[in-house]
Amino acid sequence: MILVMKPEAHMDDALALRTRLGWMGLEVGPVVPHDGRLSLAIVGRFEGVQWEALTALPRVERVVPFTRPFKLAGRELNTERAVVEVGGVTIGGGGLVVMAGPCSVESEEQIHDAAALVAAAGATMLRGGAFKPRTSPYDFQGLGEEGLRMLCDAGRAHGLPVVSEIMDLDHLDLMCQYCDMLQVGARNMQSFSLLKGLGRIDKPVLLKRGLSATYQELLMSAEYILAGGNHRIVLCERGIRTFETFSRNTLDLAAVPILKELSHLPVIVDPSHGTGLRRMVTPMARAAVAAGADGLMIEVHPDPDRALSDGQQTLTPGQFAELMASLRIIGPAVGVAVAPVRPTDRSGGASTPTQSLIVDVS
Amino acid sequence: MILVMKPEAHMDDALALRTRLGWMGLEVGPVVPHDGRLSLAIVGRFEGVQWEALTALPRVERVVPFTRPFKLAGRELNTERAVVEVGGVTIGGGGLVVMAGPCSVESEEQIHDAAALVAAAGATMLRGGAFKPRTSPYDFQGLGEEGLRMLCDAGRAHGLPVVSEIMDLDHLDLMCQYCDMLQVGARNMQSFSLLKGLGRIDKPVLLKRGLSATYQELLMSAEYILAGGNHRIVLCERGIRTFETFSRNTLDLAAVPILKELSHLPVIVDPSHGTGLRRMVTPMARAAVAAGADGLMIEVHPDPDRALSDGQQTLTPGQFAELMASLRIIGPAVGVAVAPVRPTDRSGGASTPTQSLIVDVS
Amino acid sequence: MILVMKPEAHMDDALALRTRLGWMGLEVGPVVPHDGRLSLAIVGRFEGVQWEALTALPRVERVVPFTRPFKLAGRELNTERAVVEVGGVTIGGGGLVVMAGPCSVESEEQIHDAAALVAAAGATMLRGGAFKPRTSPYDFQGLGEEGLRMLCDAGRAHGLPVVSEIMDLDHLDLMCQYCDMLQVGARNMQSFSLLKGLGRIDKPVLLKRGLSATYQELLMSAEYILAGGNHRIVLCERGIRTFETFSRNTLDLAAVPILKELSHLPVIVDPSHGTGLRRMVTPMARAAVAAGADGLMIEVHPDPDRALSDGQQTLTPGQFAELMASLRIIGPAVGVAVAPVRPTDRSGGASTPTQSLIVDVS
Amino acid sequence: MILVMKPEAHMDDALALRTRLGWMGLEVGPVVPHDGRLSLAIVGRFEGVQWEALTALPRVERVVPFTRPFKLAGRELNTERAVVEVGGVTIGGGGLVVMAGPCSVESEEQIHDAAALVAAAGATMLRGGAFKPRTSPYDFQGLGEEGLRMLCDAGRAHGLPVVSEIMDLDHLDLMCQYCDMLQVGARNMQSFSLLKGLGRIDKPVLLKRGLSATYQELLMSAEYILAGGNHRIVLCERGIRTFETFSRNTLDLAAVPILKELSHLPVIVDPSHGTGLRRMVTPMARAAVAAGADGLMIEVHPDPDRALSDGQQTLTPGQFAELMASLRIIGPAVGVAVAPVRPTDRSGGASTPTQSLIVDVS
Repeated sequence: MILVMKPEAHMDDALALRTRLGWMGLEVGPVVPHDGRLSLAIVGRFEGVQWEALTALPRVERVVPFTRPFKLAGRELNTERAVVEVGGVTIGGGGLVVMAGPCSVESEEQIHDAAALVAAAGATMLRGGAFKPRTSPYDFQGLGEEGLRMLCDAGRAHGLPVVSEIMDLDHLDLMCQYCDMLQVGARNMQSFSLLKGLGRIDKPVLLKRGLSATYQELLMSAEYILAGGNHRIVLCERGIRTFETFSRNTLDLAAVPILKELSHLPVIVDPSHGTGLRRMVTPMARAAVAAGADGLMIEVHPDPDRALSDGQQTLTPGQFAELMASLRIIGPAVGVAVAPVRPTDRSGGASTPTQSLIVDVS
Repeated sequence: MILVMKPEAHMDDALALRTRLGWMGLEVGPVVPHDGRLSLAIVGRFEGVQWEALTALPRVERVVPFTRPFKLAGRELNTERAVVEVGGVTIGGGGLVVMAGPCSVESEEQIHDAAALVAAAGATMLRGGAFKPRTSPYDFQGLGEEGLRMLCDAGRAHGLPVVSEIMDLDHLDLMCQYCDMLQVGARNMQSFSLLKGLGRIDKPVLLKRGLSATYQELLMSAEYILAGGNHRIVLCERGIRTFETFSRNTLDLAAVPILKELSHLPVIVDPSHGTGLRRMVTPMARAAVAAGADGLMIEVHPDPDRALSDGQQTLTPGQFAELMASLRIIGPAVGVAVAPVRPTDRSGGASTPTQSLIVDVS
Repeated sequence: MILVMKPEAHMDDALALRTRLGWMGLEVGPVVPHDGRLSLAIVGRFEGVQWEALTALPRVERVVPFTRPFKLAGRELNTERAVVEVGGVTIGGGGLVVMAGPCSVESEEQIHDAAALVAAAGATMLRGGAFKPRTSPYDFQGLGEEGLRMLCDAGRAHGLPVVSEIMDLDHLDLMCQYCDMLQVGARNMQSFSLLKGLGRIDKPVLLKRGLSATYQELLMSAEYILAGGNHRIVLCERGIRTFETFSRNTLDLAAVPILKELSHLPVIVDPSHGTGLRRMVTPMARAAVAAGADGLMIEVHPDPDRALSDGQQTLTPGQFAELMASLRIIGPAVGVAVAPVRPTDRSGGASTPTQSLIVDVS
Repeated sequence: MILVMKPEAHMDDALALRTRLGWMGLEVGPVVPHDGRLSLAIVGRFEGVQWEALTALPRVERVVPFTRPFKLAGRELNTERAVVEVGGVTIGGGGLVVMAGPCSVESEEQIHDAAALVAAAGATMLRGGAFKPRTSPYDFQGLGEEGLRMLCDAGRAHGLPVVSEIMDLDHLDLMCQYCDMLQVGARNMQSFSLLKGLGRIDKPVLLKRGLSATYQELLMSAEYILAGGNHRIVLCERGIRTFETFSRNTLDLAAVPILKELSHLPVIVDPSHGTGLRRMVTPMARAAVAAGADGLMIEVHPDPDRALSDGQQTLTPGQFAELMASLRIIGPAVGVAVAPVRPTDRSGGASTPTQSLIVDVS
């Protein structure tokens, strides 16, 4: 239920209305500007509330019911597309965010090398796992806090905000200390306790679609975070599970335009997990951009064949640079700007991109 | 890698061997009796360990490699079927465990009525959710600790051990305080932090198969718990997600004989979530028993049409009693004993089953 | 749209009404007795036909719209369950039909041995492929007409009606000449030309569910045959394709009660193709009967490990006899009668079952 | 098994070898040039043939086994990509084939209008159904031969070769008379009789992937046609069936690079059936081209909202022209040439594209 206020209503009026609705026992979302008017959404249950009672409230112009169960994640309330800011990088505003780096942080040297090479090729964020969700308890589980620290250092050294996966609510403070963005992995997309925890923090969240999650379920999981008050969410398509076993997953690129129709949140694509096959990452990354994705998450490793995890789906430095070059042609065809290459800077200091030195390989 | 000891080796020898392997930096599972011999499994990584070095250890007869990644959950190490004891009820030993009760604990009266009626019809355990994993943050989320207390009281009053779902590692102590068995829901089957936590406790665990989890992935999740030291695990098939949408899920009954071939752990079936359709619960429960299941988990409510959650897949008291009656005919055809009906006892006191008063409706 | 006639209307009235509807340009199904009244269904398109015009027709009591697209296959028109007669065996009338035999007819000796052994164990029909749908053009494609002749001879010699798969409309006459029932394989479930052809013949049809066909699509394929005028159809669940690859297919046993709720047609189950694993055929056959199936189709071969096709999912003679014995216990629990064992008769002559010689191995 | 001949062997030698292999009872594929050498493939069964016997044959350099079951469709035999010629249009040679037109041919006027508009926007072939595979027997089944004639006329009038679906082997002569390319629909991908028939004709075939067909199964179906002697095959990804129901199917774009890795055959994409949603056709068509597709099949109708079938997934003339314009930017980024717009020519006569009048809307 959305209460749209009259044009003359100000923020004070909206806040007063919000308080009053709270007295009525209703759960109310944040005040949202909407076509030159302020609006408020009743997001919880409202059995027994009379429609007329709501329309009669001061400065309320009209009351609009939700037609979809994802209220805060849907476009009925938020008609304008969200732009999510992560450590100086904006996602969803027309530029292509490229989160690149190794599957796992393995060593100081490895993550610094990775950061340097992806930054040089035009990546805008650094990814790397410190707590790894592995199918087997006997597989490498990540370096933990030490890995987070290395990731954070490498990101700062090369001017890249960092994103890493949170697996456990108990790690929330730790993760927030080191990361610019927290990732919810596909296997935890419906770990509702974790989602509620993420709703209470002041960090952007990258929410990956579960292996067998419908679009609606993904948006309902986003709703858990939004309902907690955290509005900085980016959705990520990373492949679903189907009968086909040649590739690790089936990358569902239609998710990009469909999620953007259903929701105002930005949508990125992970072609590395989405295919599980190194040779398929480049064509699917190009396809994702052509389909209108706001960004990519791509596994790149200085030496993928020696990676401790997921090497078979990880690009080499050369492949990544080539991919970025081709994206600089495809992006503009669909109105998306791709960051240029940067001069290689291995001095170790923070390398601010210097526009005048840009060499565009396209 | 399994080290099978010579016939003359005793437990002391095995423990000494275990210590020695620990010194070698190896992760070793518990000592397991195996065809009149003791055996020890090296369950973690063992790169760099020399095969000859292991065979040369005192009283080791031979070293056998694992052919499957689920080592403790597989049958290479455990050739005999596990029997899991839950508050006096045994699962896997030839009797059919029937865990019945409402989807959610709703009130003191509701859960006591439910316990009384399922006990009378022959159920052997009481189920009921206190923390509910709901797709929408606006749906009923369960009564929390208050619900756990009611469930525990109702179970005791009617002589039924209780099982309830754990959603959050932080609830571990709380859940252990009230429940005889902790359930991991389908959506948390790969919440590896939660699984690790459950590996450290001394309570049996009911592990439900994820909506798109393969048999191997289910067993690898069991492996997480087993590797932590908790060996009391029961597996549960509860329907997988397929293209068919008429039913809520597709109940994969072949999982029963297949999981029993791959693993020594008991396997039960949840036809309520497995179909999502009340009319289909009875035929699928019968089919599950005919397929060789060690038990059933079934949603029963005193008044399903007024249930706060999942009413459309919940049996009425009459339907449940009829189902139990038919199981008493089918069970023996596959060598499974089904508990008899009990005299109705609504006095509120603890009703110990009195064998002499049994009326078998079959 | 169903036109229910008044109680006093006779078949002559119904036929006159049928002619008149035909003049109105409407496609009309057969006259069906329905609760002591005759009824006629308009099964094709009826844009522009006025509801009032239909109600005003002579002796029409009322006009009822269809709520499901499968009109002749649904239960709105046919409220009583269909019983399909195949060469003296009835399917759907409370007895369990068991169609057993090898995947492919391989030789005169093989099919006669198979017929003898399945008849002795209590099978009621003989199956065997002469035209085989093989994924590879280089695999054994069946013996063709010669195979059909052998199958037919073997069936007659042992008193078993025969069923075989039709792959090509051009084989229609040939198949009808040798077979008592024609099978449409899963891969041809939506070969609409073939379905139309089968609608015009006077032989019962076994329609297998496609690997990714919904219940509704299966019933719409039945509708093609029904709309052509052939009402003797038996549906068959044979496993669907899911993400799980351990078994060849996922046998969806909930299809049994669901299809029986949606349609009046009999439903049988093929656990051989449904699992693709010999060890799983017996538990799933038992489960199918417990779920309410009207019959089973099972692959049995005198020497499965030397079969030219599908040996890995084919029962040995001993396994089949054991299965039949256990079904004689489970069947009665759900109100289904299972045929007894027959005295072994290898004389080659037609062996009529002699009730007095029955030896019940259960 | 591939027999690679010595460099000095000529076609005469190869044909002589072929004859000799035939005498040995082996099924041999066509003579194929291969790295400057001629080679012959034994494609059928070859139990009992001695490896040494083959190597000893005159002018045979070496014998190479197949590692994949699709022998003629795979890349072991055909290392160079196939280029398929259809009525003057080449598929697979670096230009993007765009087959556009209505789902069904509905009238003379409709198909001529459709042909004119798609030709003007840059389509290179005309599609249109005359025999329609409809789930319901009561839905519009197509105009049959009359529709084929109209399609053929419209194609000729606008300089577009035509493609239409064959549903029935009995229509083979009829279809060949009117069409430049015959399409096998997803539901008939494993109608092996039909595939065998198509192997015997001299017309190119468009083979669509079945709703639940693996890549290997699609290539095995192509193998049926190839083994019959028809080598002009184009593969088509058109969406698979998954658990997601928001879209009609899940378009699996990774199929493009994967099929091109496994096979030398051209691969095109049908985003209309692949999504079933008009708004999603344009982004997915762009993504398909970026992923490396050799072409597109797209439903376009002069007035989609009045189409007799599939209107909800059909582009309007304006949407199609816009899509083509954007493809002219994306194509070159992946090395693919897209045909220019053509001057509108509604005179009804054969309109040869006049290069000098091209207006490139990009």
